[in-house]
Amino acid sequence: MTTVAAYAAPAPKAPLERTTIERRPVGEFDVLIDIKYAGICHSDIHQVQEGWGEAIFPMVPGHEIAGVVAEVGPGVTRFAVGDRVGVGCMVDSCRECDNCQAGLEQYCTSGMTGTYNAVGKDGEPTYGGYSQKIVVDENYVVRIPDDLSLDVAAPLLCAGITLYSPLKRWGAGPGKKVAILGMGGLGHMGVKIAHALGAEVTVLSQSLRKKDDGLRLGADHYHATSDPKTFRELAGSFDLIVSTVSAPLDFNAYLTLLKTHGALVNVGAPEEPVALNLFSVIGGGKTLAGSMIGGIAETQEMLDFCAEHGFGAEIELIGADGINEAYERVVDSDVRYRFVIDTATI
Amino acid sequence: MTTVAAYAAPAPKAPLERTTIERRPVGEFDVLIDIKYAGICHSDIHQVQEGWGEAIFPMVPGHEIAGVVAEVGPGVTRFAVGDRVGVGCMVDSCRECDNCQAGLEQYCTSGMTGTYNAVGKDGEPTYGGYSQKIVVDENYVVRIPDDLSLDVAAPLLCAGITLYSPLKRWGAGPGKKVAILGMGGLGHMGVKIAHALGAEVTVLSQSLRKKDDGLRLGADHYHATSDPKTFRELAGSFDLIVSTVSAPLDFNAYLTLLKTHGALVNVGAPEEPVALNLFSVIGGGKTLAGSMIGGIAETQEMLDFCAEHGFGAEIELIGADGINEAYERVVDSDVRYRFVIDTATI
Repeated sequence: MTTVAAYAAPAPKAPLERTTIERRPVGEFDVLIDIKYAGICHSDIHQVQEGWGEAIFPMVPGHEIAGVVAEVGPGVTRFAVGDRVGVGCMVDSCRECDNCQAGLEQYCTSGMTGTYNAVGKDGEPTYGGYSQKIVVDENYVVRIPDDLSLDVAAPLLCAGITLYSPLKRWGAGPGKKVAILGMGGLGHMGVKIAHALGAEVTVLSQSLRKKDDGLRLGADHYHATSDPKTFRELAGSFDLIVSTVSAPLDFNAYLTLLKTHGALVNVGAPEEPVALNLFSVIGGGKTLAGSMIGGIAETQEMLDFCAEHGFGAEIELIGADGINEAYERVVDSDVRYRFVIDTATI
Repeated sequence: MTTVAAYAAPAPKAPLERTTIERRPVGEFDVLIDIKYAGICHSDIHQVQEGWGEAIFPMVPGHEIAGVVAEVGPGVTRFAVGDRVGVGCMVDSCRECDNCQAGLEQYCTSGMTGTYNAVGKDGEPTYGGYSQKIVVDENYVVRIPDDLSLDVAAPLLCAGITLYSPLKRWGAGPGKKVAILGMGGLGHMGVKIAHALGAEVTVLSQSLRKKDDGLRLGADHYHATSDPKTFRELAGSFDLIVSTVSAPLDFNAYLTLLKTHGALVNVGAPEEPVALNLFSVIGGGKTLAGSMIGGIAETQEMLDFCAEHGFGAEIELIGADGINEAYERVVDSDVRYRFVIDTATI
């Protein structure tokens, strides 16, 4: 066991504070990672607040992890000491079900093991990236290409793959009109990735406050959803809308913005049910779908894609003593566009 | 103009009664059809009742039309006198928009012209199939293969294509597990078509009352949705569910029956919005979609497919004086499985 410095919420809704946790010994197929950077995802806050149900405390959040391999177990074949690596939202899964076999480990039928707020196969709670080291089975570790700085790579492990997977699956590319709904940590990655995939990209955001950023990051158009004109002008425009919004939305209104056979894919997760008029999907043969992160192989593909196109996330780098303030700012949508913790400050 | 006997609802919610209507002269590209049979679709009743909004009266319903060509205009190239033909839910569209060009006339961006309860390009109201003759532009007429009897072919023009189109688009076929939700006029066609496409077919119906029929028509399995065991046993089972139900449903429960990346496609149209928990689609990357009839070319493809596989609809043939009683029985789900009017009795 190794004692490691970490930031943890000792109880539901409590502020995070410095503590220490134990990491397991490096097993045969394990990689010990010196964490360099950890992104702050809105779902970290949901879980600390128990907004998605009862959680495990103390909780060390963090599933956007970038670091360097410090040690490998004797059976590890894919990584060596010094390799630049990342860990995302899961650290294990059953490896045997149809989904795991198909590279869809995030939908493991036995349930994936979350990077934190979960219990591993050893019966011990998992602790996430707001810490200095982590031990992970090599099958759940991905390689961060040399061209990507570790700090801007960290948020790709959740925000990046959360957008990349549905954009690829639902056909974003040349000749396709894609709207990204919401211009936050997820949305700004959607703009970059959809643009790099060759799609014509529109941002739909509450206001035009972040318009300059949106256009700079690759959007071709930028509209305010608070302006009713937006819905009139853009009716029937999009092949694909990816919604990153976790506040309640009038989905029937957004479905009118799709072309025939278009799809509105949700990666944001409102806590309350939405009222859907089925005529909104029957007319035009439309789709309302969902998507949750991506599998391990697809996460590697996404990192390689981002490196090839020369971008990571837009970040605000903070020290560990800024985590609680950062949480408040994330809730207020006051971050451009992802907080990343320099874990040397823990 | 030709005066033609018909059955019409003179006013909203009124019983249908015998009357006469005028059909336009046969124009250059028109086909005059001697109607032999007309199916009764639940949407006829919705429209007579103004359940879907204000309607045009007198109303001659009927968009499941089978008959024989009696006369053709001088510009008609695709049909000759004596041909066995059908007309479905539309008799015109703009022919120029992207959807019309793509063979998706049902989603014409200017709005298709309904076979009844609509206004044609000539400014005159359209009257449907509960009548002895109809004049239709040849582009909206399809051919009924010789192997199909006209009476059992009639319901294919709406019920058949309504199921065929989503089953094809969403990949029903060998190796796929498909559930048909609801065992009525639409559902029984779903069973036949999904089976003929090679899928493993399950009927999900409120009770087991029609189980024998379901298995006879091609279902491999039959479960009652009133039995909670059904939801436990079939969790994660289906690649595709097509819902033909127009009553309110707990869609979140039905989405649990899908495999990862599965789709629940609605062709039934509940009048009230449904409450959708977005986690129901995010977990498993699932899809809730809609579909409305099909285009003209696809309707022809469906008729050819049904003829090739040797089936039409299961029908109860009635005289025109039985229409009002048939409406009551359709509302009570007391028909196996489609009423078809012998229009010689009008």
